[in-house]
Amino acid sequence: MMRFWEGHPELSGELLQVRDTILLRAASDDPCVRQAVTQLFASSGKMLRPAFVLLASRFGMPDRDRMIRIAAAVEMLHMATLVHDDIIDAAPVRRGVASLQALRGPRTAVLVGDWLFASCFALIADLAGDQNGRALSHLVARICGSEISQSADKYILHTSVRRYLRRIAGKTAALFALAFHAGAVESGCPGALVSLLRRLGYSLGMGFQIIDDILDFTCDGAETGKPAGSDLSQGIFTLPVVLALKSDDGQLAAALSRGRTNRRAALRATRIVAAGSGIAGARAAAEAYTDRAIRAIDQLPPLPARQTLREVSCQLLSRTY
Amino acid sequence: MMRFWEGHPELSGELLQVRDTILLRAASDDPCVRQAVTQLFASSGKMLRPAFVLLASRFGMPDRDRMIRIAAAVEMLHMATLVHDDIIDAAPVRRGVASLQALRGPRTAVLVGDWLFASCFALIADLAGDQNGRALSHLVARICGSEISQSADKYILHTSVRRYLRRIAGKTAALFALAFHAGAVESGCPGALVSLLRRLGYSLGMGFQIIDDILDFTCDGAETGKPAGSDLSQGIFTLPVVLALKSDDGQLAAALSRGRTNRRAALRATRIVAAGSGIAGARAAAEAYTDRAIRAIDQLPPLPARQTLREVSCQLLSRTY
Repeated sequence: MMRFWEGHPELSGELLQVRDTILLRAASDDPCVRQAVTQLFASSGKMLRPAFVLLASRFGMPDRDRMIRIAAAVEMLHMATLVHDDIIDAAPVRRGVASLQALRGPRTAVLVGDWLFASCFALIADLAGDQNGRALSHLVARICGSEISQSADKYILHTSVRRYLRRIAGKTAALFALAFHAGAVESGCPGALVSLLRRLGYSLGMGFQIIDDILDFTCDGAETGKPAGSDLSQGIFTLPVVLALKSDDGQLAAALSRGRTNRRAALRATRIVAAGSGIAGARAAAEAYTDRAIRAIDQLPPLPARQTLREVSCQLLSRTY
Repeated sequence: MMRFWEGHPELSGELLQVRDTILLRAASDDPCVRQAVTQLFASSGKMLRPAFVLLASRFGMPDRDRMIRIAAAVEMLHMATLVHDDIIDAAPVRRGVASLQALRGPRTAVLVGDWLFASCFALIADLAGDQNGRALSHLVARICGSEISQSADKYILHTSVRRYLRRIAGKTAALFALAFHAGAVESGCPGALVSLLRRLGYSLGMGFQIIDDILDFTCDGAETGKPAGSDLSQGIFTLPVVLALKSDDGQLAAALSRGRTNRRAALRATRIVAAGSGIAGARAAAEAYTDRAIRAIDQLPPLPARQTLREVSCQLLSRTY
């Protein structure tokens, strides 16, 4: 987490407080939850979503403690979806370390995910205005819907770009948008500014997820923390695959079909995608979304947080992990 | 469901509408959710919780359509906990038919449970007053906490009566109380009546769960839909076990300890509990809670719903399934 936010000491200080808020909540609960949550933080990601809550709130008049707890709720929702995703995908690894479901079994992972969901709702119910509570409830429904359609789409070769975009909109961009929305609303930003920040979050989220899906092919796994082509070998066909299939001479489709049961075929499909034009096409799409986000950022009031957002957007586009 | 509500045609008509509301929501979603939810209703229980929402609302001025949707939300929350519980317990059977996790695997069960949680929150966010939304969020947190402590307590011989009561309070009585609370608040009952109905629900829930735990020992499984002693063989020691251990000469403790890995020892422990005084002690406790509920019912305004509640309370105490 600290590595990504190196240049922003104030923000990383607040993010540590977000983490402590979650750990404190977990500590007051069962030892099983406490251990699991501590373990999850050992492989903590960039904490982007809570950072966006905090950054968006700087365009209003934030109550700092309140914002930190709302940021914690958003991060807990994200953690809950990761924990349950790893069960659904039977993922052995998350961010370079063993996933909770691999380490403690799917049963504990179900419980801990439910605990995170529930704690998120309890925090929000106590803290947030009506509007955010409602937005959060609908968001959770939407994220689950996207997970379900991702599951249903598995191994389907003719997934369209549109269907892919709809899926990542529900899975990633909606939560990014909510993080910005919550930060803006809860710090009393006027309506037009709330809406600008929310749209910014959406575009940033789309760009972020496409880059994530590219990195799954172009990285060796040491940096991303999961083996290359891991989505593909799970039957999840992301934008690089969908685009590569458009100019396929039949070899990729064949490798993907056989890849369901044959590891070598899956590896071959991964190599075809990594070497093909799908990567460049996907990168262009990520750049378009990031560009849209930056144009929105340029419309924000000239505060230091605007510069931070600009830097973060570029960092997310050029990142290698 | 219809069997239990045979004598109450109006209520069973409304409960069918509750079921249709849930099925309709599921139908608009992914085929995987639709199938799973339809399957869950094939082995539908008594639909007690939505019935309590509807019954409590009759002491106010209910908007019927609104109440049916709130009842649906409460039932979806209950269904979500059952689906995830079956993963946690690796339960092969639920209400006499194969459980969702056994039928479709734990991954689908995680997804469908999450979908049910999320849909419940989305319904409540749209419909219910602030107060119920908040109560619901805290309740979900509490139910998860109870599940976690049940999981943590597994195979612990020296569970106290107090710890058992706290566990079922969080797991069952809190949701019964919420069903009454939601029905009362949303139909505009005055504060004192809301509180009376909520306390009534709590006592009824405690009595209900203790009877459930007794039936696990005294029924052959054809009626309850699960094999006798199934909690015990999962390492969940309920009131009959806790009480039986108090007058144990060492045989039960030994059988329970060996029962963890030895099926015959678990069967022997089940027989010792079923034949011992723990059953009678547990029944006395269930009667005390039901009695408390009936005393609260007697304080309700003299409406037809009061008589229905009185009959249902007695039915729940004397039921064999």
